[in-house]
Amino acid sequence: MTVDAIAPRGVDYDRVFNQAIDRLHAEGRYRVFIDILRNKGAYPNARCFAGHNGPKPITVWCSNDYLAMGQHPKVIAAMEEALHDVGAGSGGTRNIGGNTHYHVDLENELADLHGKQAALLFTSGYVSNEATLATLARLLPGCVIFSDELNHASMIAGIRNSGCEKRVFRHNDLAHLEELLAAEEPGTAKLIAFESVYSMDGDVAPIAAICDLADRYNALTYCDEVHAVGMYGARGGGISERDAVADRLTIIEGTLGKAFGVMGGYIAADRTIIDVIRSYAPGFIFTTSLSPVLVAGVLASVRHLKASSAEREGQQAAAEQLKTLFAQAGLPVMASTTHIVPLMVGDPVKAKKISDILLAEYGVYVQPINYPTVPRGTERLRFTPGPAHTPAMMAELTQALAEIWTRLELRQAA
Amino acid sequence: MTVDAIAPRGVDYDRVFNQAIDRLHAEGRYRVFIDILRNKGAYPNARCFAGHNGPKPITVWCSNDYLAMGQHPKVIAAMEEALHDVGAGSGGTRNIGGNTHYHVDLENELADLHGKQAALLFTSGYVSNEATLATLARLLPGCVIFSDELNHASMIAGIRNSGCEKRVFRHNDLAHLEELLAAEEPGTAKLIAFESVYSMDGDVAPIAAICDLADRYNALTYCDEVHAVGMYGARGGGISERDAVADRLTIIEGTLGKAFGVMGGYIAADRTIIDVIRSYAPGFIFTTSLSPVLVAGVLASVRHLKASSAEREGQQAAAEQLKTLFAQAGLPVMASTTHIVPLMVGDPVKAKKISDILLAEYGVYVQPINYPTVPRGTERLRFTPGPAHTPAMMAELTQALAEIWTRLELRQAA
Ligand SMILES: Cc1ncc(COP(=O)(O)O)c(C=O)c1O
Ligand SMILES: Cc1ncc(COP(=O)(O)O)c(C=O)c1O
Repeated sequence: MTVDAIAPRGVDYDRVFNQAIDRLHAEGRYRVFIDILRNKGAYPNARCFAGHNGPKPITVWCSNDYLAMGQHPKVIAAMEEALHDVGAGSGGTRNIGGNTHYHVDLENELADLHGKQAALLFTSGYVSNEATLATLARLLPGCVIFSDELNHASMIAGIRNSGCEKRVFRHNDLAHLEELLAAEEPGTAKLIAFESVYSMDGDVAPIAAICDLADRYNALTYCDEVHAVGMYGARGGGISERDAVADRLTIIEGTLGKAFGVMGGYIAADRTIIDVIRSYAPGFIFTTSLSPVLVAGVLASVRHLKASSAEREGQQAAAEQLKTLFAQAGLPVMASTTHIVPLMVGDPVKAKKISDILLAEYGVYVQPINYPTVPRGTERLRFTPGPAHTPAMMAELTQALAEIWTRLELRQAA
Repeated sequence: MTVDAIAPRGVDYDRVFNQAIDRLHAEGRYRVFIDILRNKGAYPNARCFAGHNGPKPITVWCSNDYLAMGQHPKVIAAMEEALHDVGAGSGGTRNIGGNTHYHVDLENELADLHGKQAALLFTSGYVSNEATLATLARLLPGCVIFSDELNHASMIAGIRNSGCEKRVFRHNDLAHLEELLAAEEPGTAKLIAFESVYSMDGDVAPIAAICDLADRYNALTYCDEVHAVGMYGARGGGISERDAVADRLTIIEGTLGKAFGVMGGYIAADRTIIDVIRSYAPGFIFTTSLSPVLVAGVLASVRHLKASSAEREGQQAAAEQLKTLFAQAGLPVMASTTHIVPLMVGDPVKAKKISDILLAEYGVYVQPINYPTVPRGTERLRFTPGPAHTPAMMAELTQALAEIWTRLELRQAA
């Protein structure tokens, strides 16, 4: 059916869809994907394809492969071995033929990482959030979910799909959270959902204090450590390891696609909760399991980062250095306390313009971050320096930004 | 927080979760995952770990890697090359650093496969169904979705999450579908969602006739070809290619984890619809993109199956032969018109018992299929013979089943 053929009668689908796209253009937030290939072994160097005659070299400044583990020789070797040993895909859901020995090993490894009894793999961090929150809350009659206002879209999706009542508390605001908890009946099932590192601002949740409130009001806790696993704690167990509060959290959720460098997601919790999600969550049950090649790579990555802190330290040092350089140059670097370095722009069109100039004139790739990823009016550039970004690269980047800030007459740091 | 510590006050979370698990045990549908590794190059042979002293050799009869493409030398070679060229993971969402040249190429290849203007990749077939249906319908005010009663859980999730009105039509029942379509206002936005091959029964939807109804009632059509892509049509474009109706479908959805042998999902449609889903679907936007290693493998797989029909033909011949053998042995093989060979058991405990005996005594792995994957009372064993299952394996399997059917005094074919 072509959409034109049906236009004269009833709904004009084509018009509705075109209007949806037009709205994005009008707001300056229509997204064009840059077309790149990373150069293995030479990260953050990459090649850019779109709009050029042949690949053009660029430096990537916005990857979430924070520690360059996606390029680590141990990870590559483990994936190659699995590829040759068992093949490309798992060939089935976890229940029907797709449960390989790699999956079992990785779940044990992740449970150990967080000091929990068990863990469960999902095809992505998005799916782990959506499936777990929706299922958990649906199993608890009358459950009310308390959600930080800056929670990630995947948690918001899970909460919405649970069909539960939701109370949104102001970002990291303990007094507001307590006010909302206290307003519910003591006999009501409660779940507090929040992140440890908020990836667009770079700030950190007060996990211990949230757990205190959870204890006081008999609430379960769900903590998304997607931007912290591999990155914080002596073994990469996240902020909950660093702050020694992992055992107080009911569920810890993480990704395998950022610091661990591969792809996939998981939760860690006590055995019963893992068994419940494993048994009831459609997003876990009804899908082909993670490719054993990916799982083998993650196993190598998690094991390496449990034993080695060099990558974490290198990354933290790079982030500190870049924040200092930006501040010295008068650039409006946001008050991040973590490895994330956001520069506030506050306008989607300007953010895109800066990003376009960086790519075209300086060979620097950093993606502008627009609504709905961040609230309107807080559009920004978000840099993720890693252990492989050299001091020279940082100096060049800072100079380029200072020049563009002057050229476009942008607001400097307050 | 340990769950015990909070038991005395208010909700006893531990009890609620334990009861949820107890219900599954009571119904005989608590799932234990078998723990296996396939032997590359020797599929359907594999090793089984759980409950044995060391790996034990088994034959896999229930993989959805229907054509053994997960073991194909071209696929393995392409993945190995990508692994060495660009590394393990994409390092970002499609919009933020995770759009590699492989992704762009594969979307073009898949659009071409279905004769559509464009295609869009997702991390799984599950996510492609959930994200597309939820987003599409939410953009159409007042949309009513018409859903086949046997639709997959991922479509059901998408439809529920869209918040739209849903009308369920009896499986493949055109008269019922028309009745429901006719009952709506002509000005109401409508979407018909169905599968081409229903994977648990092995029957096929009357796509052309559904499109006729869609034209008559000005409805969009959404067809899940997850169990048909790579398998039917001269180039593996699915039942819609075989029946020459691809151009009449608004959206075709497929997986990269079954016949293509790797992992991931996609939709193909006209450019505007792809752009709308790309721009509005949270399940597409807010997640790390597919690993370029997987994408490279799928590219090789799709290209190979576009040019070669040998795998499809081998698979069809094997399925025909197994159905014949089962029927001759008096086994209750269901009336599948496709590559899927289901044996009806009708009871979850017996289905599991047969499966357990096959594994323990015959080294045959076939998973029992229980509720909620199929309706209660229709529990079954589902065999997926492939080009690599030899006539000798089929004869052995048939004899084993006949012996077990006698031993357990099970119902024979009518
Ligand atoms: C806070 C947060 N949670 C979850 C996710 C989803 O994880 P994944 O990319 O593995 O789907 C992301 C980003 O993608 C995220 O930023
Ligand atoms: C009909 C149908 N649609 C969608 C899916 C999900 O596809 P994927 O395994 O790629 O998530 C499946 C099975 O897993 C299926 O059987």
